[in-house]
Amino acid sequence: MLSPVVWRRGAAWLRSCRGKVLRRGGSREPPGVPRARGCGGSREAVPTRERYGVRRLPFARLAERDVAFFERLVPGRALSGEEEVKPFNVDWLKSLRGCSQLVLKPQTTAEVSQILRYCHERNLAVNPQGGNTGLVGGSVPVFDEIILSTALMNQIISFDKVSGILVCQAGCVLERLSEYLDEQGFIMPLDLGAKGSCHIGGNVATNAGGLRLLRYGSLRGTVLGLEVVLADGSALDCLTSLRKDNTGYDLKQLFIGSEGTLGVITAVSILCPQKPKAVNVAFLGCQSFAKVLETFTTCRAMLGEILSAYEFMDEKCMELVVRHLKLSSPVADSPFYVLIETSGSNSTHDEEKLNNFLEWAMVSGLVTDGTVATDDKKIKVLWSLRERITEALTHDGYVYKYDVSLPVGKLYDLVTDMRARLGQSAKNVVGYGHLGDGNLHLNITAESYSHSLLDAIEPFVYEWTARYSGSISAEHGLGFKKRQFIQYSKPREAVVLMQQFKAMLDPKGILNPYKTLPSAPERSTY
Amino acid sequence: MLSPVVWRRGAAWLRSCRGKVLRRGGSREPPGVPRARGCGGSREAVPTRERYGVRRLPFARLAERDVAFFERLVPGRALSGEEEVKPFNVDWLKSLRGCSQLVLKPQTTAEVSQILRYCHERNLAVNPQGGNTGLVGGSVPVFDEIILSTALMNQIISFDKVSGILVCQAGCVLERLSEYLDEQGFIMPLDLGAKGSCHIGGNVATNAGGLRLLRYGSLRGTVLGLEVVLADGSALDCLTSLRKDNTGYDLKQLFIGSEGTLGVITAVSILCPQKPKAVNVAFLGCQSFAKVLETFTTCRAMLGEILSAYEFMDEKCMELVVRHLKLSSPVADSPFYVLIETSGSNSTHDEEKLNNFLEWAMVSGLVTDGTVATDDKKIKVLWSLRERITEALTHDGYVYKYDVSLPVGKLYDLVTDMRARLGQSAKNVVGYGHLGDGNLHLNITAESYSHSLLDAIEPFVYEWTARYSGSISAEHGLGFKKRQFIQYSKPREAVVLMQQFKAMLDPKGILNPYKTLPSAPERSTY
Repeated sequence: MLSPVVWRRGAAWLRSCRGKVLRRGGSREPPGVPRARGCGGSREAVPTRERYGVRRLPFARLAERDVAFFERLVPGRALSGEEEVKPFNVDWLKSLRGCSQLVLKPQTTAEVSQILRYCHERNLAVNPQGGNTGLVGGSVPVFDEIILSTALMNQIISFDKVSGILVCQAGCVLERLSEYLDEQGFIMPLDLGAKGSCHIGGNVATNAGGLRLLRYGSLRGTVLGLEVVLADGSALDCLTSLRKDNTGYDLKQLFIGSEGTLGVITAVSILCPQKPKAVNVAFLGCQSFAKVLETFTTCRAMLGEILSAYEFMDEKCMELVVRHLKLSSPVADSPFYVLIETSGSNSTHDEEKLNNFLEWAMVSGLVTDGTVATDDKKIKVLWSLRERITEALTHDGYVYKYDVSLPVGKLYDLVTDMRARLGQSAKNVVGYGHLGDGNLHLNITAESYSHSLLDAIEPFVYEWTARYSGSISAEHGLGFKKRQFIQYSKPREAVVLMQQFKAMLDPKGILNPYKTLPSAPERSTY
Repeated sequence: MLSPVVWRRGAAWLRSCRGKVLRRGGSREPPGVPRARGCGGSREAVPTRERYGVRRLPFARLAERDVAFFERLVPGRALSGEEEVKPFNVDWLKSLRGCSQLVLKPQTTAEVSQILRYCHERNLAVNPQGGNTGLVGGSVPVFDEIILSTALMNQIISFDKVSGILVCQAGCVLERLSEYLDEQGFIMPLDLGAKGSCHIGGNVATNAGGLRLLRYGSLRGTVLGLEVVLADGSALDCLTSLRKDNTGYDLKQLFIGSEGTLGVITAVSILCPQKPKAVNVAFLGCQSFAKVLETFTTCRAMLGEILSAYEFMDEKCMELVVRHLKLSSPVADSPFYVLIETSGSNSTHDEEKLNNFLEWAMVSGLVTDGTVATDDKKIKVLWSLRERITEALTHDGYVYKYDVSLPVGKLYDLVTDMRARLGQSAKNVVGYGHLGDGNLHLNITAESYSHSLLDAIEPFVYEWTARYSGSISAEHGLGFKKRQFIQYSKPREAVVLMQQFKAMLDPKGILNPYKTLPSAPERSTY
């Protein structure tokens, strides 16, 4: 066994290697040890690779001939210069940094196929990367995996206005797709804070949830077809555009949420809802979490089919967006805030329903203050209070992020318990999320990373979640950071089966290694 | 190679074997040949096994010791008497008949587990069976597979009124679940004509679509968790009750729609919508299929979020339900009929939307006659015109059934083309279905089964469907009857991958053999 090595953020970076290759295939260095020169140095402490129990697997190392091959295959789109590669090695949270020396930017499925066929033959590990907005370290290399970016696979293939079915390449940015559809009178069935950067292929690969799931359901229902390139380079064309197809096993489902570990999604067929004619947003203050819950039950009954989002955030979240982003709260200070969105086909009917509900909510004391927006601009302002919490948190210090599903009644107890447990050792312990989906985002900030604080949080947070039969990852996935905790949400048999699927589809394990699945087939914690 | 044998319906049946076993394990007969005594005789012609290219695989034959084991395991619930077993061997359409000698009725997952563990060890083939309402021969044995019926696994495990999540055993009848939920103010997210008999486990195993898919989406979105027993008897507990869970691959999806070939579903967790406060049904006459389509586009825009079903049927369907079931048409004779359902939370709003739409539809000439129902009784009467077409068809003679997905604009052309192609050789060629989902049910009746008529229909119907990138099975599955045509809707790579999944999960192939997957890994038709 090789000793795990320390993996730190910041750092002296690879020396310039534009057009050159630092690590040659013929090296005599023992496999499995990341070279210090590649990821050495330290500016501040972060979780170590040791903490995550990871060591480099014996993949081949990138050689000059490999780079030459890729430069011929995707001329001008094989980046190997230090500065060019740098941003692709770091995750959005700046909490993880890999040591890849090569970024490939294919434009077609055929190119992806050729890249993977070559990597498979050469036993080179590959890190598929979309918009790199993931929050669990799934989208950046852990060691020196080649980065396969979908950034240039950004073409819309077709859109059918009768059926609302969009077919596009995996690298289309979510917000671009939304803009395109808006002109056609449709919307994407998903929306999330990272929409300006995230790719639809990444959304599908991580089974992104987001802000519209309550109304339009998960990607498992709205994604109709996928084109995927498997680890050996073979393409699997399941890119059907049919609402119903019961001809055999639904293979695409295996790739939805597999975080790039089973195949690289190259194109997506997705069912898009018609653009609602009327959208209203109410932003309300509640005096307790019990009132937040009661407001949810009441509005679900009174707004019925037009309810399209029910989000909540606590007063700490509001403090952070006000302090760090200079946003202003539209309502009186309250322990909790709720954002309710309606989307419907008749503005008169919708406003009547919403007004009836709001009147009831105020009279019965469920909410103590509120504001309603019907025009686009004000709606955006209200949504930004909720959507930009993640961004505000990054300004507050080092962020420990958790994304759990729980029975709604227990949702906020985890925040309260965590706050009590951590006391002064944390800067802020905040809770917000998609209450309508039973999805809490628990975030803890501190001035800097500390092992001891992490030890106080984990595995407590997972044990707590498991006690109430929750999920330790509602929508973010497991990626690199949470894969070793899978057993809190999945029985052993399920993990073993996942490992069998991985072994079948990617026998050499070259696709996004060190992600999703725990590092060893049998863990002592079972 | 053993010659395929003729498989006929009707027939002299196994001699009485209550408490005895006719076919002994130690038999010297060559494996792969179904015994004539078991399925011999003929009352009328039906497609032969030869037509389907099937021969018995070398599974073990049921022996006395096996029956004794099962009688100890599930006392009083191991049926081996001829008359007891008979109804389980025949499909609902009475178009296929197997030769099973044993029906097992477990009550618990543990019993299912023990049954499969034993069958796996002994290499005995198993046919999982729910309500036996399938239309593609997936739910009856082909040869002498042991029938594992979920009929006694009919317990509701839990229902949570806040989240609307129902957890129940696989053998619960859909209509019973609907009745139970109705009392709680909820509905099942699916509804179909066979609701009085079909089991929820069977619904999930076949990924049943039905009448509410337009509004509530497919089971791939509403099924939150499954408990499954694998071929070797091991239980896989993915019975979570969370709206969101991104901890690894979504294994349950593989079992949804796998028609019992990968595992036996023993329990289901499903998200149920709140019962709509107002339901309206309009039954309309249209003068052409183009008007049916335009009516759909118009009503989708004008009814928006309250549209919960858009069904169509042609005049031939109406003639059949009137003639065979003595129903009466509520509107003037028309070439096409449309059933529109709205479900909403405010009856005043819903009626206003519906009336606006109907007024527009009449004034603009989209529809020429119509009736609207708001009370339960009249709604049921209108729905029965559409729901009972399948039943009416069975009274019309031998039925050749097809269930395809197509782009909506092409949907009815298949019926027209087929009618022209078959001319007088068919009694009736009818089309109806879930237009809102792009799903056509094409049915052809004749006085009796004929090889030549089938040759005129197939593979023409599949080639036609494939030409327009449709699916040869929108919601019925492939079962026994359609598995050899999978290549019309799935690329070779996908079929190979399915076969690999099957081999991984059920290496001996004991689970529902001869179903879903084509008989040979590589078929000459590719």
